[in-house]
Amino acid sequence: MNIAAQSWERREATSFFHTFTDLPSLKTDGPVIIDHGEGPYIIDTVGRRYFEGNSGLWNMTLGFSERRLSDAALKQYQEFPGYHTFFGRNSKPTVELAERMLKLAPAPMSRVFFTNSGSEANESIVKLLWMMWAAEGRPERRKLLTRKNAYHGATVMASALTGKDYVKAFGLPGPEIVTLDCPHAWRFALPGEGDDEFAARLAANLETRILQEGPETIAGMFAEPVMGAGGVIVPPATYFAKIQPVLQRYGIPLIADEVICGFGRTGSLWGTLAVGQQPDIIVASKSMSAGYFPMGAVMLSADIDKRATAASEVWEEFPHGFTTGGHPVGCAISLEAIRIITEEGVFENVKSVSETFQSGLRALADHPMIGEARGMGLMGALETVADKKTKQSFSGDLRIGERISKEARDRGFIIRPLGSSVVLAPPFISTHGQIEELLAVLKEVLDVVYGTVKGEVA
Amino acid sequence: MNIAAQSWERREATSFFHTFTDLPSLKTDGPVIIDHGEGPYIIDTVGRRYFEGNSGLWNMTLGFSERRLSDAALKQYQEFPGYHTFFGRNSKPTVELAERMLKLAPAPMSRVFFTNSGSEANESIVKLLWMMWAAEGRPERRKLLTRKNAYHGATVMASALTGKDYVKAFGLPGPEIVTLDCPHAWRFALPGEGDDEFAARLAANLETRILQEGPETIAGMFAEPVMGAGGVIVPPATYFAKIQPVLQRYGIPLIADEVICGFGRTGSLWGTLAVGQQPDIIVASKSMSAGYFPMGAVMLSADIDKRATAASEVWEEFPHGFTTGGHPVGCAISLEAIRIITEEGVFENVKSVSETFQSGLRALADHPMIGEARGMGLMGALETVADKKTKQSFSGDLRIGERISKEARDRGFIIRPLGSSVVLAPPFISTHGQIEELLAVLKEVLDVVYGTVKGEVA
Repeated sequence: MNIAAQSWERREATSFFHTFTDLPSLKTDGPVIIDHGEGPYIIDTVGRRYFEGNSGLWNMTLGFSERRLSDAALKQYQEFPGYHTFFGRNSKPTVELAERMLKLAPAPMSRVFFTNSGSEANESIVKLLWMMWAAEGRPERRKLLTRKNAYHGATVMASALTGKDYVKAFGLPGPEIVTLDCPHAWRFALPGEGDDEFAARLAANLETRILQEGPETIAGMFAEPVMGAGGVIVPPATYFAKIQPVLQRYGIPLIADEVICGFGRTGSLWGTLAVGQQPDIIVASKSMSAGYFPMGAVMLSADIDKRATAASEVWEEFPHGFTTGGHPVGCAISLEAIRIITEEGVFENVKSVSETFQSGLRALADHPMIGEARGMGLMGALETVADKKTKQSFSGDLRIGERISKEARDRGFIIRPLGSSVVLAPPFISTHGQIEELLAVLKEVLDVVYGTVKGEVA
Repeated sequence: MNIAAQSWERREATSFFHTFTDLPSLKTDGPVIIDHGEGPYIIDTVGRRYFEGNSGLWNMTLGFSERRLSDAALKQYQEFPGYHTFFGRNSKPTVELAERMLKLAPAPMSRVFFTNSGSEANESIVKLLWMMWAAEGRPERRKLLTRKNAYHGATVMASALTGKDYVKAFGLPGPEIVTLDCPHAWRFALPGEGDDEFAARLAANLETRILQEGPETIAGMFAEPVMGAGGVIVPPATYFAKIQPVLQRYGIPLIADEVICGFGRTGSLWGTLAVGQQPDIIVASKSMSAGYFPMGAVMLSADIDKRATAASEVWEEFPHGFTTGGHPVGCAISLEAIRIITEEGVFENVKSVSETFQSGLRALADHPMIGEARGMGLMGALETVADKKTKQSFSGDLRIGERISKEARDRGFIIRPLGSSVVLAPPFISTHGQIEELLAVLKEVLDVVYGTVKGEVA
């Protein structure tokens, strides 16, 4: 049989090894192959049309037909279609993007380098910190602080930094990872404990843990401003204000993983600004290129730049870099994506539709199956519970998140299942009307799933 | 001062944190900012023109003005400009590329997934092997075999797998890495030991080491067919034939890192075919997209596919993947790059000009400063020695590789310094005439540097 005569679904299943794909759902529903896109919508090979309520993976913030980005790509492809940043050589768009990043950074930053992804950016930082501490005579400063439910990527070390249960599948995290409390007040605050007290307790726990491990063994702390893949966890307002003095007391650099939050997702240009982070190093990725090109960036404060440069001089170089990191086309696309977001009204749109989105989401908290509706800007989550009072989750066997997502998909809306929650992150170009449609479908879908679940639980 | 009024060099130095850049050379010569490209040439912002004798970083194999690749990019950008491969969703070009890869693979392979880089591909394999062994009740199978002078990438684990001295800067490799002999006969064969005996000794050493470590602790072995960044090390003809039975005896999967060799670099379509590798897993990257887009691929044999799928079923998914892995634009570009290489005469050109390149390179072995001229296809290296008989290297302080490269650069040819060697990897589209010019300049430059070095050493 001619391979092209087979269905796309069949071709996919026989050639592609699936990543982050729920295999029971795949068995029931088969793969969905996307054909093309229009604004915030995607259309599959059999003509079904979906509103992409997650912007792909948080990243296709300008939708799926932004001609200005394809124009920027083509222009750069025709001028200079690829190069590296090793051996003292570089490309014009790479330099321009480095300057632009420094200018827009939420805290004073000194210099930048680029990677192909957020994973590679976080891995680069681990190497940079280890090299820096060793050069300063502190080679034992290797442990990395992270938090339960954090997500920092998919390479080995980035997975180890990811505080999700599934990393056990790989025998991770190893002994160099110290996993701290998740700053999720609704789930983890003690009875009667206010947000501020909860934050104070987490800061005290941090200090206790640092002293237990030995401050002289700790290289740095990674933290998303708002946790993304962990379920859109917005920390208490004073959380970073309380933990940062502890880190400073022990000379522990703070790395803001702005892969999801950076460039507008939270309704602030950076998550850092939304939650009061004071980072020493900042990582950006997804929205930076609006998903049109694999891009990651690492920005260093003047202090870290100086210390890492001194460490590099010991080896005559920073013996690190990625072949296509700082790719001129990726940088040209990012310059245009950032320009569109910051200068063409998109960031203003995010701030405006976020109000509709967040208030609509919070209204769903009244639903009998919803424990918490949470979020900030254009990121949000609905966490289901079997019992609103005790916050008891449904049994995993009920596959609540998958079921809500499937019902929404059947109605033309893509949202992301995450255990017994669903996560939403609409494109930055979404209109008020589209957000209202999404919320209406969510309400309908919750009713449908609740109807069936009640029967199963009863 | 208006930033745009400053020189590109000044702008770069104040905004960009340098990766893999020799800091003493940067201090002397400053950065070089590339403006545009024409075929195998690049032109910098002050109008200097260079033949790119390294294809950038081995990857810009179709040069710097391949309109068919920018056309392919634009077409895909306009149709569907970005998506992921999670949650059972996928894009048409991603499926087509998976099929194409399986069809072209040098050994029977079953399924494929994609990453943004070779580093991410190797990291993915480590995770996949660890998950697979743990699911099979062998969680202690975590150690990874690699070789002195191997290069497998720049993320933490990929760096640990890299058998270069500089990884000590990061306190790597850790205890999970077992570093084996480098199969470089000229440097490491014993006096009077033939290539075949050398290979046999390395295979015996491998078995001894496996038994010392405990076969039940070993997850897999990574090997480039021909080592690239380690200095273009072509193994003895029988090397893989001798080590593979040892690996098979202990059930250790072999991973062919074809990041550099894949798609023609060695004069065979795959390095695997050139050196007689029988891999269980194959990684491709650089030439796959001709450097026009960050791309990596992991191909799994039927056996590994089956076992990894069974392991995924334990967790209901392979909890792994990269946001932009399998990007539709990267896949569309790769499909076109592979088509151009395999169907438009480029691979035939590689085979043809390789003869000019390899014979010319070998003729330079007579030079008083050259210890070994080596290579295969369109990859080669010249290793300098202070004493041809003892093979004693020059002192590192003399910076021989840097000096040869600088002299070549001043004459409009980019080649890559590597300690006291230089490495060459011309674009696949190079003509016989361009290769002859490169070789003539190399000869001239060796004479110039030798003239100055003689004076310094004397």
